[in-house]
Amino acid sequence: MASRSVRLAVIPGDGIGPEVVAEGLKVLDAVSGDLAFERTSYDLGAARWHRTGEVLPDSVLAELREQDVILLGAVGDPSVPSGTLERGLLLRTRFELDHYVNLRPVKLFPGVATALAGVTADDVDMVVVREGTEGPYTGVGGVLRKGTRHEVATQESVNTAFGVERVIRYAFEVAASRPRRHLTLVHKDNVLTFAGDLYQRVLKRVAEEYPQVTTAYSHVDAATMFFVSDPGRFDVIVTDNLFGDIITDLGAAIAGGIGLAASGNVNPDRTAPSMFEPVHGSAPDIAGQGKADPTATILSVAMLLDHIGEGDAARRVERAVSDDLAERAAFGERSTSQVGDAIAKRVSG
Amino acid sequence: MASRSVRLAVIPGDGIGPEVVAEGLKVLDAVSGDLAFERTSYDLGAARWHRTGEVLPDSVLAELREQDVILLGAVGDPSVPSGTLERGLLLRTRFELDHYVNLRPVKLFPGVATALAGVTADDVDMVVVREGTEGPYTGVGGVLRKGTRHEVATQESVNTAFGVERVIRYAFEVAASRPRRHLTLVHKDNVLTFAGDLYQRVLKRVAEEYPQVTTAYSHVDAATMFFVSDPGRFDVIVTDNLFGDIITDLGAAIAGGIGLAASGNVNPDRTAPSMFEPVHGSAPDIAGQGKADPTATILSVAMLLDHIGEGDAARRVERAVSDDLAERAAFGERSTSQVGDAIAKRVSG
Ligand SMILES: CC(C)[C@H](C(=O)O)[C@@H](O)C(=O)O
Ligand SMILES: CC(C)[C@H](C(=O)O)[C@@H](O)C(=O)O
Repeated sequence: MASRSVRLAVIPGDGIGPEVVAEGLKVLDAVSGDLAFERTSYDLGAARWHRTGEVLPDSVLAELREQDVILLGAVGDPSVPSGTLERGLLLRTRFELDHYVNLRPVKLFPGVATALAGVTADDVDMVVVREGTEGPYTGVGGVLRKGTRHEVATQESVNTAFGVERVIRYAFEVAASRPRRHLTLVHKDNVLTFAGDLYQRVLKRVAEEYPQVTTAYSHVDAATMFFVSDPGRFDVIVTDNLFGDIITDLGAAIAGGIGLAASGNVNPDRTAPSMFEPVHGSAPDIAGQGKADPTATILSVAMLLDHIGEGDAARRVERAVSDDLAERAAFGERSTSQVGDAIAKRVSG
Repeated sequence: MASRSVRLAVIPGDGIGPEVVAEGLKVLDAVSGDLAFERTSYDLGAARWHRTGEVLPDSVLAELREQDVILLGAVGDPSVPSGTLERGLLLRTRFELDHYVNLRPVKLFPGVATALAGVTADDVDMVVVREGTEGPYTGVGGVLRKGTRHEVATQESVNTAFGVERVIRYAFEVAASRPRRHLTLVHKDNVLTFAGDLYQRVLKRVAEEYPQVTTAYSHVDAATMFFVSDPGRFDVIVTDNLFGDIITDLGAAIAGGIGLAASGNVNPDRTAPSMFEPVHGSAPDIAGQGKADPTATILSVAMLLDHIGEGDAARRVERAVSDDLAERAAFGERSTSQVGDAIAKRVSG
């Protein structure tokens, strides 16, 4: 690996966030070789909000912009009003840094127990390409006559040809790079006719440029059923922000649990740094007990490495995780740091 | 059962719709006793649309309004543009007849195979109370600059205190009538903050009138995970139109498949007839082959009987279905009408 320096912002966050991030960084160190990470840690999340009332100061966002890449643990705590950190920190980062692709592999590693009867690792190997910057997540909407019998609360899903095309294009690229070359659009075009029709038309148009990729469509309700009854039908999925949120949590459930689910909030145009994070939350109930599984964060580190062009290092981390998972049944209980140690040892060994 | 006459509208629809409706009516006949159904059949769906271009003529809607109750099979066909029949017929009926409760039991019957490893009938027994007349299903929204690079497509979720309160109230009533008396709100209040906050505030307020009911909240993404990993945590769920659509298909997947999932589009105020239908669609791929499972329709007939105050008859149908399901493994392949015959025989026997 050539000597190279990468500016890495780290947002450990709340609850188990700092614990799992520590293990992610441990593995990153073990795999880095000549690759030098200049790390800056940012104190953001529930603790900072309680202390200062700040969620994401503009100055911090400006600093984040100057980084090459971001690793996030998890933010949130029941003591903070719902939405404060989600909209003000997580979604604001995704929107401001133009993370229009939320990349979420749903892959069952060999040897990992799944909740589904009769399903094996071969049956669950997909990548969900979730739109990250529009749809129902815009925050557009409002409330009228709040607290009265005549209250009206609205939420608007805003979808643009620009936004839909770029995420669909990305999804075709991902599909074209995989052996099965199959792309499924997940939406609800029979009810959300305006947005669904836009997705359908753009998919059809872009598909002409990818004759090697086969395409399919599934309503989101049917898709959740297929995740359980026939996950093998999916290879790459492209979907909107909200449907992607829902089906990737379900995806985690069928692929060994939320402790293994990695994700990347990706700006493919590289006009701002991308952000990698486990799909799970801050899990305050188990925080500080060394019980959290750092695997999702470590797999997110592998995605981070891929994003910065260090594919070999990414593969080594993935392989170490895969080997560790294959033998887990034999290990018995291990603490967060024991899992991190074991995987770090494998990547350096 | 006292002699009584009920006006029943039947909409067989497309694909397997007529086949499963025939079995539903067979069982209804078998259980009716002194109860006389005056049936009127309505020809609606893809076939009519192809023949006449009509989806739901106002005159037909006016006739439906005069009925006591409606039984629907399934409508739809790939040859009809997506949304035409869904918005124009199914959703129009739900909205115009004020079916503000979409009632969907998610119940694993003993002896039925589930897709989940290690889950038994005791673990899956819930009722989803899905809002039916507002939220993201309103059809509010539109498209600007269609077909250009600058296209914008919007969908608006409209939620009112009036609409949210009445469905939450209904859900509390259902919860209060069940042994566990537990109600979970499923939403996404950390992102859809306006609508989610309205649901949360109304839930809290109405909860004061039901001190015997415990309440909980789950984000919709987490809920899909729990459906797979821990369905036993749910008793009654109240949720919006779109989330309800998604989680009830998932619910069908964990409770023995879509062939068993019944539903009622209920107008609890009885200002218009309610409509009962299987959750599944018209399945044109297996239509006309006697392969469709009529069980979902037969269970929908049981819900219909409950709605018109014929609880004893409803229980008899449910018991017949439950007994049939318990012995299914021994039967081998049976046709649609053989299943209907067997269940009809049990209710009359
Ligand atoms: C915390 C929340 C805002 C977030 C989302 O809805 O995107 C989370 O559920 C996720 O999937 O990353
Ligand atoms: C066909 C469609 C409009 C409908 C819905 O989305 O409600 C269906 O999926 C259902 O669940 O009854």
